[in-house]
Amino acid sequence: MEGLSKEETISLRKKYIGESCDLFFHSDPLKIVRASGQYMYDELGNQYLDCINNVCHVGHCHDYVVEAAYKQMKVLNTNNRYLHDNIVKLAKKLAETMPPKLSVVYFCNSGSEANDLAIRLSRHHTKGTEMITLDHAYHGHVVSAMNISPYKIRKNTDGVHPYPEFVHVAPSPDTYRGKYRDCDHPGKDLGEKYANDVKDIIDKVHAKGNKMCLFIAESMQSCGGQVIFPEGYLKKVYRYVHDAGGVCIADEVQVGFGRVGSHYWSFQIQGVEPDIVTVGKPMGNGHPISAVITTNEISSSFAKCGMSYFNTYGGNPVSCAIGLAVMEVIEQERLPQKALETGHYITEKLRELMKIFAIIGDIRGQGLFIGIDLVKDRKTREPATEEAEYVLHRMKQEFIILSTDGPYENILKMKPPMCFSRTDADNVIEKLTVTLKEVEEKQKNGEFAVKNHGADKNHNAVIDDVRPISVETTTVSGPGEPADLEQEDPPTKKVKASEDI
Amino acid sequence: MEGLSKEETISLRKKYIGESCDLFFHSDPLKIVRASGQYMYDELGNQYLDCINNVCHVGHCHDYVVEAAYKQMKVLNTNNRYLHDNIVKLAKKLAETMPPKLSVVYFCNSGSEANDLAIRLSRHHTKGTEMITLDHAYHGHVVSAMNISPYKIRKNTDGVHPYPEFVHVAPSPDTYRGKYRDCDHPGKDLGEKYANDVKDIIDKVHAKGNKMCLFIAESMQSCGGQVIFPEGYLKKVYRYVHDAGGVCIADEVQVGFGRVGSHYWSFQIQGVEPDIVTVGKPMGNGHPISAVITTNEISSSFAKCGMSYFNTYGGNPVSCAIGLAVMEVIEQERLPQKALETGHYITEKLRELMKIFAIIGDIRGQGLFIGIDLVKDRKTREPATEEAEYVLHRMKQEFIILSTDGPYENILKMKPPMCFSRTDADNVIEKLTVTLKEVEEKQKNGEFAVKNHGADKNHNAVIDDVRPISVETTTVSGPGEPADLEQEDPPTKKVKASEDI
Repeated sequence: MEGLSKEETISLRKKYIGESCDLFFHSDPLKIVRASGQYMYDELGNQYLDCINNVCHVGHCHDYVVEAAYKQMKVLNTNNRYLHDNIVKLAKKLAETMPPKLSVVYFCNSGSEANDLAIRLSRHHTKGTEMITLDHAYHGHVVSAMNISPYKIRKNTDGVHPYPEFVHVAPSPDTYRGKYRDCDHPGKDLGEKYANDVKDIIDKVHAKGNKMCLFIAESMQSCGGQVIFPEGYLKKVYRYVHDAGGVCIADEVQVGFGRVGSHYWSFQIQGVEPDIVTVGKPMGNGHPISAVITTNEISSSFAKCGMSYFNTYGGNPVSCAIGLAVMEVIEQERLPQKALETGHYITEKLRELMKIFAIIGDIRGQGLFIGIDLVKDRKTREPATEEAEYVLHRMKQEFIILSTDGPYENILKMKPPMCFSRTDADNVIEKLTVTLKEVEEKQKNGEFAVKNHGADKNHNAVIDDVRPISVETTTVSGPGEPADLEQEDPPTKKVKASEDI
Repeated sequence: MEGLSKEETISLRKKYIGESCDLFFHSDPLKIVRASGQYMYDELGNQYLDCINNVCHVGHCHDYVVEAAYKQMKVLNTNNRYLHDNIVKLAKKLAETMPPKLSVVYFCNSGSEANDLAIRLSRHHTKGTEMITLDHAYHGHVVSAMNISPYKIRKNTDGVHPYPEFVHVAPSPDTYRGKYRDCDHPGKDLGEKYANDVKDIIDKVHAKGNKMCLFIAESMQSCGGQVIFPEGYLKKVYRYVHDAGGVCIADEVQVGFGRVGSHYWSFQIQGVEPDIVTVGKPMGNGHPISAVITTNEISSSFAKCGMSYFNTYGGNPVSCAIGLAVMEVIEQERLPQKALETGHYITEKLRELMKIFAIIGDIRGQGLFIGIDLVKDRKTREPATEEAEYVLHRMKQEFIILSTDGPYENILKMKPPMCFSRTDADNVIEKLTVTLKEVEEKQKNGEFAVKNHGADKNHNAVIDDVRPISVETTTVSGPGEPADLEQEDPPTKKVKASEDI
């Protein structure tokens, strides 16, 4: 079995690995055999620039992290029912990056486990049942997290995973492509408009005699299409949720640990104080570790429920040694500052490209979390889905790994390892310029379909053709019932090169 | 923060770690700083014999596993959306230990994630809703797994985590302490009697017009009190479940990878072929890795649901290198054979102790999975809970780590790393002899309460005083309704030194 050829690997994968586990670039997948920093290498020695792996946060195979792991693995790796310094050191270090009230930490193995525990904490603390999530949100693959992940459930075609009645979907506060757009409401406070939709849901919950449990959102929406929330949005939403006795969860699994550059956590950009924060992916630079950080009050309510919380590997000495090492590298190498500088640099370059290429409808981002919204028409903002897929595959041929996301998969996504440099940015811009020129040429030749998806009419109120999902607003009926809105289908794609990586 | 004293560690833990995360020996916890093989060492250099860590399966910090991890960590650790040899090699190796029909593998990070995915697979495959689990079962800490874990939900005192209506609890087929006991039904086929209770549940499901989804059980019940099932039990149950169109899940998270000695998986002892097997804990020797193994048919049904399955760390090259190394060590060091021999050796020694000490009501086990059921009275089988707790703490003073479990926490549990030797067994027997003599002395002096818990009357139909749980049988009403049986409270204990480790 040593040294399998790529064909043998593919053939064994087909035989032994679940079909639902998609490969990037499905029709011509990459076999990656090593990686270092922001670069990955295939079996032929080709070097790829990795623009999307936000898990290998401080750089693939970072020496400092690997050596910290090795050092601890040789000495002890047992569960957290024994006292150990690593767990308390990492908990303290995490708590110190948070608002003072967030001081209690639970360790888990994945973002999914962390969000599941956050749900459990919220339920035991509030005794409420009703949950509000954002449309197109993704919070994890376990059943409880799937329940609050329209990004996933929208794709369910056998009807087996319906939204539970207690889950309410609020519109994603996307001012470019969402329900309320900057172009339709110039000068208006869109944060307030979107927040009012959450308030309306809460009012309906109360009208039915139900009790709020939680509101959960990434503070910048990743899978939803690199959505940066309008100013003031979360502040208002959190106030409404708190007034209703609910708990506010900030899911920082994809967007935390300094990626946004200006702050350590993305909720800080919105100036809010969550009641629960979930963190994961970048935390272990590839090692399975995640955490839930909450208040003394919520932790105490949970303890009173009579059930202990034991997570076999959560907070083990090796995971915590790795978590500590990652946070130390973030500080030592000033990665947030670098993310801010490099993010600013590439965003400016992309804005210059925007002057040349009409296909770029919007550039949005914070630090090294960047989205390029490709459109067929800047006025209608019709998503250029096919074109985005073309760009993705052409960039791969140029040894640059990007991904697409958003409900129309027309948004080019960048969230590279934080060591991503100006030189790398220049490389991306150079290859993207060539590729977009090709796209323009192909558009002229009619090689991409020019059809109106209707995205400009219904905005974010996308409704799946098989599983109706209500995005609740004042004008829409309750959960479970088909929304009284015109319908449109988001394009479906077999090959996904993005999704919750 | 270097070199914290034990007091400082305790104080930081109190401040920063969730109160629900219990420590072993709560009132005087251990600070373990290193471990090797079957031994752990505290901050003073004291050596403890670890009789309970089934996660560090091939021995704490096994060189071969650590070096395999280090080697891979230096080279590549990314997600499974790129082709890699490690994931297909491990999937193939796992599948080769299973019945031929079980050939498709999904990788996750924990037993909880694996059982959650098994539930999802079952739902999409059967389109049924109803699930049958065994009383006192534990299948994980995420919401979906908690739903089928009476072991946990029985302890919920705030009513926030009720059993869903679709979950049905069958009696645990415990022939010593369960509903049907060897003493009450001499010479009877108790496997059949217990299996008939499952059939009755299925009949009731059908009578209500509902459709079966799954039956899940460990093939030997760990948290339930080291329960070895009567011969033929699972064969009959699996047939009833299959006849009803349901899926049978064998949870091997705690009891797999050769622990039982005679077989690689404990379901093989019962001669059954599950439709889904979940594996975890021992798989990574402490590293977070788990897997779901299923059939082509079930995997294909899941793929048809339209939602891809992506697990950020699941099947990454490091996790899989570790999984491969663990399986190689199991083979190279002939650990199942050793478990069989050492398990046989210590069980025989324990049976000799049983002749001396009336407190030992039952010795049961397979390989290095052993339970010692302590009773106040062999005839009534009243659980000797206080005595078990005393033994636990005294053994700790003798530098031997055991745990207690079962609904009455009166069962001394052994599931040590597989390198546990005859010398270690002799050590345990020697210290246990001394301790049990003390217990006898104390019993004579009236230092343990002599009261009848009534365990002999209601057998396994324990009902929590706050959350009524129906153990469904022909004579008991449906789920959610209080069972029409006399009630008794299992003793509650603040300090748990066992639970799903």
